[in-house]
Amino acid sequence: MNMLVDGEWRTNAYESTNDDGEFDRQETSFRRWVGGEDVRDGAAPDPDAEFPAEAGRYHLYICRACPWAHRAAMTRALKGLEDVVSLSLVEPVRIDDGWEFSEEYPDPLYDEPYLRDIYTRADADFTGRVTVPVLWDKEAETIVNNESREIMRMLNVAFDSLAERDVDLWPEGRRDEVEELLDDIYEPINNGVYRAGFAGSQEAYDEAVSDLFDALDRYEERLEENRYLAGDVLTEADIAMFVTLVRFDHVYHTHFKCNRRAIHEYPNLWNYTKELYQLPGVAQTVNLQHIVDHYYQSHGDINPARLVPTGPDIDFAEPHNRDRLAGGPPDSLLDTAATADD
Amino acid sequence: MNMLVDGEWRTNAYESTNDDGEFDRQETSFRRWVGGEDVRDGAAPDPDAEFPAEAGRYHLYICRACPWAHRAAMTRALKGLEDVVSLSLVEPVRIDDGWEFSEEYPDPLYDEPYLRDIYTRADADFTGRVTVPVLWDKEAETIVNNESREIMRMLNVAFDSLAERDVDLWPEGRRDEVEELLDDIYEPINNGVYRAGFAGSQEAYDEAVSDLFDALDRYEERLEENRYLAGDVLTEADIAMFVTLVRFDHVYHTHFKCNRRAIHEYPNLWNYTKELYQLPGVAQTVNLQHIVDHYYQSHGDINPARLVPTGPDIDFAEPHNRDRLAGGPPDSLLDTAATADD
Repeated sequence: MNMLVDGEWRTNAYESTNDDGEFDRQETSFRRWVGGEDVRDGAAPDPDAEFPAEAGRYHLYICRACPWAHRAAMTRALKGLEDVVSLSLVEPVRIDDGWEFSEEYPDPLYDEPYLRDIYTRADADFTGRVTVPVLWDKEAETIVNNESREIMRMLNVAFDSLAERDVDLWPEGRRDEVEELLDDIYEPINNGVYRAGFAGSQEAYDEAVSDLFDALDRYEERLEENRYLAGDVLTEADIAMFVTLVRFDHVYHTHFKCNRRAIHEYPNLWNYTKELYQLPGVAQTVNLQHIVDHYYQSHGDINPARLVPTGPDIDFAEPHNRDRLAGGPPDSLLDTAATADD
Repeated sequence: MNMLVDGEWRTNAYESTNDDGEFDRQETSFRRWVGGEDVRDGAAPDPDAEFPAEAGRYHLYICRACPWAHRAAMTRALKGLEDVVSLSLVEPVRIDDGWEFSEEYPDPLYDEPYLRDIYTRADADFTGRVTVPVLWDKEAETIVNNESREIMRMLNVAFDSLAERDVDLWPEGRRDEVEELLDDIYEPINNGVYRAGFAGSQEAYDEAVSDLFDALDRYEERLEENRYLAGDVLTEADIAMFVTLVRFDHVYHTHFKCNRRAIHEYPNLWNYTKELYQLPGVAQTVNLQHIVDHYYQSHGDINPARLVPTGPDIDFAEPHNRDRLAGGPPDSLLDTAATADD
């Protein structure tokens, strides 16, 4: 990742550690809401909001490698928002100039060379982190939001009436629980793998890995009797968990040294990962080649030779055993054939 | 590893790659034989040889981290040669000055600071690689041999009549097969993990990993019906295989990116590894802390932050299922209680 600091684009400002060698993730910068701020709490979108919910008006810039961007792409796929919110990719490997477009993955809106150019279009004085996902307003020509948790919520709530499928990922009655789950998995799991991988001291690594596997062990147990994190119904929390789990064995286990145990060695987490992978539209959001290329080739500080390992012999399409548990995916999801999202 | 080149000690000359990015292991330098050269072919040691087989005369310098040194230590332990050939350790972490002694792991013979000083005692003009194991003659004050395969053979053949236990690791009738096995596992497995880890190009890595797992798959199949590599009897080939397998899941899988599959995921290789680990005296030759510290902290080119990963939750002392197969360890090994070898 690059970042404009004192007028210069700095590389790897993203992978920063504090004085104790602990990885510090910087805050995202754009936190506005399609349909207005009350969407965050589940309110129907306000048609008079600065950014009204409209089909064809918004665009998602993502990278298939990035788990945070994956949250947005997966929510869009599950809801059936492919025709409502357009989506494009950046190159998976991020070298000196940060996320970049290319001939294969061009900027469909402005034909800019770098994602940072999109950020400076939104704010000429922008100096923060250039990250994906970016939710772009094609009409106002600005970034609405670049915080994955909020984009996930917006796609679920603000765009709900525009969605092809009746899939509510933040259902009433489970909302507090989903918020708690999202909070609970963020630090030890979603961000925990980064805290381990980018640790600048053995102590910081040891603590991150200990937190990570304590949490994975807890969720392994939870998933013994619960089909999904919040019980019998699929929610945003499952998306947030899945995007980490699906990358784990290929990347976090080796590259970030989270090698106490692979996800495919946890019976419940592994079957849960396979079930989510096999939901209509989800496999199309997973590009393992982009994932391994990105991590192993972008982080010269961790992998100087930038070799991309072979990865484990595992198959996300193999049968899972989750049908033994109560609940299951929303009916409208099962009724619909999968569609590609790019 | 350091190496004297043009009058200067060079670090990391050991981890060298050729123009195609392939790891080239340099030849060892001292290739003399206790009991004379015919010991290589199984002849009884010649009492008039330059280096006669005598109790108390020879010393092994090893590092517990090094698989090549481990061959010597494990052969010594299985034969019961602890009182015949003395042994000492070097520090597991190898930084700028190569293998070194310390307060905790001193040079018991000359109190030298570095192992290279032992090499220059043997040959003042020595300019080759400073490696373990070293078989040192305390009387002639020189290095007899520093090639692990030859030291293994010498300990087995030349010192056989001095050994506490009647354990023949190169039994007549299996000798050609053992030689073939040692050859067959060397390049893809023993050295293959290094070829993967030190590869300087994606092509070199891909080829090494492909060779490695093809070979592991073959040996997994072989061990389905064979208790040991050469059938029902334990041989030098098993030692050579074990020293790689016992390091695999903690080090080669993550650090050298051999992450297609862990040894504990191969039923036969894993049970075989556990059986060998549980033979009397062998566990005492395995120091996992030295192993992980060495690899992760010595190779800044692969692991710049020198973080030592947590490692997998596996237990070499768990029950194995190898008793279902014909054969087993030599009787004299089972009759004897384990002894520590340092």
